[in-house]
Amino acid sequence: MDTLIAPSVLAADFANLQSAIEMINDSEADLIHVDIMDGVFVPNISFGFPVVEAIQGHAKKPLDVHLMIVNPDQYLEAFKEVGAETITVHFEACQHLHRTIQAIHELDCKAGVAINPHTNVELLRDIIRELDTVIIMSVNPGFGGQKFIEHTYEKVRNLKAIITASGSQAKIEIDGGVNMGNAYKLIDAGADILVAGSFVFNADDPKATISELKKL
Amino acid sequence: MDTLIAPSVLAADFANLQSAIEMINDSEADLIHVDIMDGVFVPNISFGFPVVEAIQGHAKKPLDVHLMIVNPDQYLEAFKEVGAETITVHFEACQHLHRTIQAIHELDCKAGVAINPHTNVELLRDIIRELDTVIIMSVNPGFGGQKFIEHTYEKVRNLKAIITASGSQAKIEIDGGVNMGNAYKLIDAGADILVAGSFVFNADDPKATISELKKL
Amino acid sequence: MDTLIAPSVLAADFANLQSAIEMINDSEADLIHVDIMDGVFVPNISFGFPVVEAIQGHAKKPLDVHLMIVNPDQYLEAFKEVGAETITVHFEACQHLHRTIQAIHELDCKAGVAINPHTNVELLRDIIRELDTVIIMSVNPGFGGQKFIEHTYEKVRNLKAIITASGSQAKIEIDGGVNMGNAYKLIDAGADILVAGSFVFNADDPKATISELKKL
Amino acid sequence: MDTLIAPSVLAADFANLQSAIEMINDSEADLIHVDIMDGVFVPNISFGFPVVEAIQGHAKKPLDVHLMIVNPDQYLEAFKEVGAETITVHFEACQHLHRTIQAIHELDCKAGVAINPHTNVELLRDIIRELDTVIIMSVNPGFGGQKFIEHTYEKVRNLKAIITASGSQAKIEIDGGVNMGNAYKLIDAGADILVAGSFVFNADDPKATISELKKL
Amino acid sequence: MDTLIAPSVLAADFANLQSAIEMINDSEADLIHVDIMDGVFVPNISFGFPVVEAIQGHAKKPLDVHLMIVNPDQYLEAFKEVGAETITVHFEACQHLHRTIQAIHELDCKAGVAINPHTNVELLRDIIRELDTVIIMSVNPGFGGQKFIEHTYEKVRNLKAIITASGSQAKIEIDGGVNMGNAYKLIDAGADILVAGSFVFNADDPKATISELKKL
Amino acid sequence: MDTLIAPSVLAADFANLQSAIEMINDSEADLIHVDIMDGVFVPNISFGFPVVEAIQGHAKKPLDVHLMIVNPDQYLEAFKEVGAETITVHFEACQHLHRTIQAIHELDCKAGVAINPHTNVELLRDIIRELDTVIIMSVNPGFGGQKFIEHTYEKVRNLKAIITASGSQAKIEIDGGVNMGNAYKLIDAGADILVAGSFVFNADDPKATISELKKL
Repeated sequence: MDTLIAPSVLAADFANLQSAIEMINDSEADLIHVDIMDGVFVPNISFGFPVVEAIQGHAKKPLDVHLMIVNPDQYLEAFKEVGAETITVHFEACQHLHRTIQAIHELDCKAGVAINPHTNVELLRDIIRELDTVIIMSVNPGFGGQKFIEHTYEKVRNLKAIITASGSQAKIEIDGGVNMGNAYKLIDAGADILVAGSFVFNADDPKATISELKKL
Repeated sequence: MDTLIAPSVLAADFANLQSAIEMINDSEADLIHVDIMDGVFVPNISFGFPVVEAIQGHAKKPLDVHLMIVNPDQYLEAFKEVGAETITVHFEACQHLHRTIQAIHELDCKAGVAINPHTNVELLRDIIRELDTVIIMSVNPGFGGQKFIEHTYEKVRNLKAIITASGSQAKIEIDGGVNMGNAYKLIDAGADILVAGSFVFNADDPKATISELKKL
Repeated sequence: MDTLIAPSVLAADFANLQSAIEMINDSEADLIHVDIMDGVFVPNISFGFPVVEAIQGHAKKPLDVHLMIVNPDQYLEAFKEVGAETITVHFEACQHLHRTIQAIHELDCKAGVAINPHTNVELLRDIIRELDTVIIMSVNPGFGGQKFIEHTYEKVRNLKAIITASGSQAKIEIDGGVNMGNAYKLIDAGADILVAGSFVFNADDPKATISELKKL
Repeated sequence: MDTLIAPSVLAADFANLQSAIEMINDSEADLIHVDIMDGVFVPNISFGFPVVEAIQGHAKKPLDVHLMIVNPDQYLEAFKEVGAETITVHFEACQHLHRTIQAIHELDCKAGVAINPHTNVELLRDIIRELDTVIIMSVNPGFGGQKFIEHTYEKVRNLKAIITASGSQAKIEIDGGVNMGNAYKLIDAGADILVAGSFVFNADDPKATISELKKL
Repeated sequence: MDTLIAPSVLAADFANLQSAIEMINDSEADLIHVDIMDGVFVPNISFGFPVVEAIQGHAKKPLDVHLMIVNPDQYLEAFKEVGAETITVHFEACQHLHRTIQAIHELDCKAGVAINPHTNVELLRDIIRELDTVIIMSVNPGFGGQKFIEHTYEKVRNLKAIITASGSQAKIEIDGGVNMGNAYKLIDAGADILVAGSFVFNADDPKATISELKKL
Repeated sequence: MDTLIAPSVLAADFANLQSAIEMINDSEADLIHVDIMDGVFVPNISFGFPVVEAIQGHAKKPLDVHLMIVNPDQYLEAFKEVGAETITVHFEACQHLHRTIQAIHELDCKAGVAINPHTNVELLRDIIRELDTVIIMSVNPGFGGQKFIEHTYEKVRNLKAIITASGSQAKIEIDGGVNMGNAYKLIDAGADILVAGSFVFNADDPKATISELKKL
């Protein structure tokens, strides 16, 4: 399977989101990654509904919504309404993770779980069959532009083994510090989707950068 | 004193914020009202740092930042850094309100307190001398486009009396459902600043609408 | 206006609720008072939906539901569905009290606010016009059978003055330690509704006791 | 060892609990399962102390109390006082689980831990020797009448292996969606106790249904 | 009545508490003020039980324990056991303040309420008769050595009026930034007890400083 | 490598901390263990900044600071400032453990993670390479003088295996109930550092007791 590329809007110019979305539309990107931060689960407030709605108004690729928020259950329906195709919640934020995943599926969305750098992939064994995606955080969530954590490759391999053993169809998505220097190794370890933020949007030619990632 | 008009970005088109900000720059508006919602203090997530930073990059008028968030103390400095001139916190979110106001002043920002519709203005008596602004919520915070609460006029008059009696220089700012039908009555009751969101941005000619409000 | 009597199910025999409800149906009681405690807002867990639903199945008088719970907003609709005619929330549990009251009214229920013994009635001035009921706790909420707080009479008089001055139609309801020794004084001070729990259910003849209260 | 059957009162008629308890007394059931929900740990409020006390007044079988509540430590003694023989707390609700289990044992109660559907049984390795019971949730906690999660069989087998390896005496209890179609497979996988709610109480002949489960 | 002086141990040398306590024993001080901070209610962690127990072991004057902590109810008995004569809780930390005060009295301790600088003394009207002490914070709680808030005099006068009108016996205690420059004005406004921390312990002659305060 | 001995100040006489610290200075102890409890993460409040600062003023051995507090991130810098060489946070208190450990290292402190008795060491697999220390709680945190949990030996062996397999340099520290009866077995199982509180400070000759532990 081809690796999917998901540029993260978090690194775009928020004064002109339409043109950022149109760039993604015109690129070889597969998904639009949308990082929602509430300032409580993570120490940053990024953006929420009015901004996602504006993205939806121009996007021609599926929205991959990553909720870095506490109590995500209360907002699942609202994110569906502003166009989410996939909704990913954090393992560390969900005491009733199975119910949350069920609720996302009942909205006809794909469901994902994201895990922080210290969280052991073994903790996903009993939920993995229900998942469409697992996001492995390869930096600490909360900010763009951080340094990639090298231990990530091992987590990808361990998670791949769990997925294969269980018969799950879950895709592995890597979020944080992805660039040309680590993308191939991540794919080789088992990654299916690469999120790229500042690496794409700070590039001289974002579309070309997406193409290069896509070709790996 | 002239009434100040503060268009709220919450009602703008988030796909093209630059042009919304430029419209405000070119208008007779005095302030740019910025509504930060975290999904925890209020049941909506609006936007945070990356969006305010984008606004700052184009704004030629002072940013009037209204924090509808829990534990605002941890983010005061960060809002200063993205350009806040005034930082307003919610009475209902602050157990140590006097310290929070002190901390805002130490950042060389103006300091405000916002009160929810049910909150009695008497509760501000012991802090009023420290304040540059009081925001009286004339709708329940969390969403744009709600119906104005008629009881607001009485709250404005009561607050005005407290301000006058104390010798405070605090301005009274009204947020929620302001339009041509209530603006004059609000000014007459004692309001100094009017926030206007959908009334401005949904108008055929937003700049003209701002001018009309300004003329009252 | 006649004083309304609201026996509190909390003091009934939960092994045979049907007969307790039928006793109330057959009595001169006006309302059935239903005390919901979550063990978080108050240090006791009383009962919730399955029990209220059972009460609804037999009740021929309106259910007066008193929520001693945190975050009541998420459960308003569910209490409507199990038959609540009035829903009362605690002042101390609601940061957005005006919105909560609005939400109760949108469900076509009557809306009340309860205040703890230390809470000053002045805090209700800006919400009183929106209310159908105010419950003054005359004991600390959480348990039946406690001693009546004598200061309650003064609170009733102060609240009555606020209600009269504002033109509100809110009724004053007294909850805790009501008995033949204080009921008249409470009515005289301005109480409209008396909740009675153990005084009624521990009486030799509960129906006669209700009648006596009703005659005052 | 024979499988123990624990009818859950949650599915009974709360208007006539006494007769529900007497039915259980007269049946071949081994335990009376009591589901306490606080509306905070789970999105439902079931019932608490006054109801359990009423159950205790008529019960002739041990009360198996399942606490779906936050901060259970503060209520352990109170549940002992209303007749709990076993007290089970949720893994996801206890940061100091070892202390909580110790505290239950010091009350001379049996101690259990319940785990949500997504929680990996490996997380119990360091506490399993201290436990009398583990409840594997086979539906998401909070409501009766939900659909059984098929992955439960595998969790039972994995847990059985951990129990055997450790020399623990803990019994495995299954809670949620148990019926004649899955009971045998659960027992075969290692289950020792079956909770049955609506399957028993909605049956034409609850006592006969208990007998059938008991015969498996 | 004489003004009572309560040196605050917070400013003592914690390497040699015994000698600090003995200095207070030998001085004209009336009380030993003990500031408990939990790092959650206030942004500082001071000290707790083992330190208060050590103080108790040497103190010959009553311990005046000021709890700057969340959920004080769970620790009232423990503070009684380490020698508290008075236990003061924060208004802002207590949803069921009347019950908390009752609980302190049931331990045969004196009961106080402390209010933050922004908190209006009117909020104490319905609890004032139950109180032995009100602490007016004249700095923001959390640290020693802060600058005295000038508005305090007005709060003292307002509180004195409420106390007198109600017939309460509550004493007014001032905590924060007390020194020779403001002590007389505070007494004149109605203060009964002065807490003094760094002003006493940083003085060349702490005992003489206490005497001077006492003479005012 | 020699076993390191870390006497815990929690068991010292807080009326005369200086002499307790001097005893440790003069002994063969390697570290000074400092237990910070906030009354929220654990049911005890021990001591905080002013006390640690006093310890720092006399200590000639490194301070090994063990934070039994919620939200430790906000206080890391402050503990560095009062002299912490190692800062250990609790696994159960940190949703973003990798970031917290990073933040401790950025302060040029050593970083540790403590785990409660029920917490499985497998949960440390993805963070172990980043750690300088792991504290295995061998009693439930919150109080000195509790009984040692025998299961600890197995946890030490399991953790040692994880450390060895990962190439981590983390030391294993045991906290709770350590004495001459279990110290050797702990070292044999893989422990590198032994915390000793009441066993040392309640001994007739604390220095000699430290020496005996050191000789094992």
